[in-house]
Amino acid sequence: MPDIDLIAAQEANHAGPSKGKPAKSAKAWNIRASPAVGRSRNPIRATLATLTTVKPTTTKSLINLGIGDPTHYPLHPPPPAATSSVRDAVISERANGYVPGAGMVSAREAVAEYHSRWDGVKYGIDDIVLTHGVGQALDLVFSILFPHQLAERSNILLPRPGFALYATLLANLNVEVRYYDCLEEQGWEVDLDMLESLCDDDTRAIMITNPSNPCGSNFTESHLRDILDIAEANRVPIIADEIYGHMTWTRPFIPLAALSTSVPILTLSGLSKRFLLPGWRFGWVALHDPLGVAAPIKEGLGVWANRFFGPCSLTQASLPDILQTESQWFDDVLAKVRANADVIYSAINETPGLSCSKPEGALYILVRIDQTAFPQFVDEVDFCTTLLREEAVFVMPGLCFETPGYFRVVIASPADIMHEVGERLKEFSSRHCRQLF
Amino acid sequence: MPDIDLIAAQEANHAGPSKGKPAKSAKAWNIRASPAVGRSRNPIRATLATLTTVKPTTTKSLINLGIGDPTHYPLHPPPPAATSSVRDAVISERANGYVPGAGMVSAREAVAEYHSRWDGVKYGIDDIVLTHGVGQALDLVFSILFPHQLAERSNILLPRPGFALYATLLANLNVEVRYYDCLEEQGWEVDLDMLESLCDDDTRAIMITNPSNPCGSNFTESHLRDILDIAEANRVPIIADEIYGHMTWTRPFIPLAALSTSVPILTLSGLSKRFLLPGWRFGWVALHDPLGVAAPIKEGLGVWANRFFGPCSLTQASLPDILQTESQWFDDVLAKVRANADVIYSAINETPGLSCSKPEGALYILVRIDQTAFPQFVDEVDFCTTLLREEAVFVMPGLCFETPGYFRVVIASPADIMHEVGERLKEFSSRHCRQLF
Repeated sequence: MPDIDLIAAQEANHAGPSKGKPAKSAKAWNIRASPAVGRSRNPIRATLATLTTVKPTTTKSLINLGIGDPTHYPLHPPPPAATSSVRDAVISERANGYVPGAGMVSAREAVAEYHSRWDGVKYGIDDIVLTHGVGQALDLVFSILFPHQLAERSNILLPRPGFALYATLLANLNVEVRYYDCLEEQGWEVDLDMLESLCDDDTRAIMITNPSNPCGSNFTESHLRDILDIAEANRVPIIADEIYGHMTWTRPFIPLAALSTSVPILTLSGLSKRFLLPGWRFGWVALHDPLGVAAPIKEGLGVWANRFFGPCSLTQASLPDILQTESQWFDDVLAKVRANADVIYSAINETPGLSCSKPEGALYILVRIDQTAFPQFVDEVDFCTTLLREEAVFVMPGLCFETPGYFRVVIASPADIMHEVGERLKEFSSRHCRQLF
Repeated sequence: MPDIDLIAAQEANHAGPSKGKPAKSAKAWNIRASPAVGRSRNPIRATLATLTTVKPTTTKSLINLGIGDPTHYPLHPPPPAATSSVRDAVISERANGYVPGAGMVSAREAVAEYHSRWDGVKYGIDDIVLTHGVGQALDLVFSILFPHQLAERSNILLPRPGFALYATLLANLNVEVRYYDCLEEQGWEVDLDMLESLCDDDTRAIMITNPSNPCGSNFTESHLRDILDIAEANRVPIIADEIYGHMTWTRPFIPLAALSTSVPILTLSGLSKRFLLPGWRFGWVALHDPLGVAAPIKEGLGVWANRFFGPCSLTQASLPDILQTESQWFDDVLAKVRANADVIYSAINETPGLSCSKPEGALYILVRIDQTAFPQFVDEVDFCTTLLREEAVFVMPGLCFETPGYFRVVIASPADIMHEVGERLKEFSSRHCRQLF
């Protein structure tokens, strides 16, 4: 891609003198984009851009279940403490100033206390860095772990299916990305043999996403212990993306840090999902280092935090109140998500040619397209494009999660929308599925 | 520094088995921080950390003029439209969702209109990317211009004295930093001969900070045109850090983009300084490309914006209102800053051993320490440390701006504080200055 940029720039240079004053020399404009740009194209965004040019041919209203945003069709009002606390902070006119790079002390203390409630782990405020959403938390953690421009070997193990932003943010850090599979037939658990076989002396981190986007899984304690054993045997820290933590219904969520007595765990979380506030861009990193072997990581967190400033001061000032949100509010949200999961799970499995595992957490269901039932679609992008055109339902193709042959449905909309999606999927299948029985 | 990290990690590894369960193998923990961490230490932060351990020996109250935060000692209430608009946005519960990577369309339109008001330049919304403060705007622009890990040669020209974060953010992008001088005897104008001599075929960008942090200068139209001529002759785009734009008093501020008919200008601005809202982390990039030669940069802005999300959705939703802040409010703020500038300018130049140019903009005065008058201090850090200990006044040593022998005074506090600082500087000098006349 950088080559194309270069050609474009050169063509522009040769377009001749234009409206400005005459050039003082014949030298060409020395304008190129970094090769980093070409490596940073986000496949989700590109696929979205193509798909969104599709014009539905139906009169049905568009249902957009592409982005995991529970506010798009408001699922539930935000936490009352969040609204009132930010309102008070802005009216006070006393929370507009700079805060430390790692975040306000009161807000970091609140995060430490919030995690200690579930993990049983004692975090110091130096173990917590507040970030501009989990996106910046990922960028922070990757930046301090991987070698950037040096010719030093390193690799990271990422889940497949998984969240595409991981690879995008890693693209310029001189790190090899290795995918381990999560197995649908085992409730999307990690393929432990594969995980173990991918670890070597250059492995700097294992990424675990639990509950999973896009799988909707929630790992058992026993499975989490198996993962920890592999990390311990190979002496590799784990990045635990737990932004969907506690959004589970078949069994309680277990934070990975709660089980680790040796492996350093960098837990990433925030307000985007469980608190239904994705636009606020409020995330954090919490480091649990039971044996004290991760001092370089802890120091790196502190240094890198001073390159940026964390979330908006208004939301930082409000965080202690927000994290006191009552359990009833979470229970109400979760009851709605769980009901949606049941609706879509039933609808999918009643639809010829489609199937899915029972979701146990997060805001997603990953749906398998039986290729033999829909041979007319060359791939899942073709399937999703036709679904959008004919039924005005937008779902994300598996391509965006390294999982061809599947699509992801977001289950964070009001129940009537989820019912409607189920109906439209059945109608779509009734027209296109090649019945094999 | 990475070597030290490595040694620390190895020592930790050899500390023997500890409280956790017994290790399953004798393998050492493979935990290192990236060499990028060592390159990213921010000298301002490090100096601050050392200085803040100093205990004043006086009973006078501490006056902290280190960080350029006009809310630290509230100079003036924030724009009424900012407070009311964010209050309304949060109460509405309708501005909590994800927004596009480059920012909400309505907010980008407002930025385009805001700049067009002064620049006379027409910006499209694709020319505007909203960022998490100017810090993220710098990171964005640097990331798309410089080669990262490739062995490709590139350099950037930075001002000296200048803002230390530039070099920190550039440290891992494989770009050579070249400093051009700004000349005190010419009101801190750019040394044009030096700027020209530093340009070569590998120069990807020139950074211009106007009005200047830390110099307090505001360039004339004629000087800005001279800078543009050099950029044009060398075919190099300019990054115009104009976060202090319009905070000038001896003559109106002229945006660089307003004068360019050929050179691509990446203007960086935001709400931190002119709107007195540094904690909100709201910045932006505006690309002016009169000849259309910077298409790769424009594309890079779009791609990189999809790696992150810009400012908090509440402040994005409020931006159109905030940018309509009335001119009277700006005039009131500026009158206070100007009065502070006069107070400190007079006090400094009445103080034996210290001198400064008359500030014309921004929130700073850069003060020269006459080394022959204070031979007992080995450098300006020593001077500032002693000043803090004896007079409880904290100012930033020139070291933080690549300018040894000077210190920076922030002039964004209420007038009584500025008067008090003037008095304490005189008392300090009266004790320490070796009178030469």
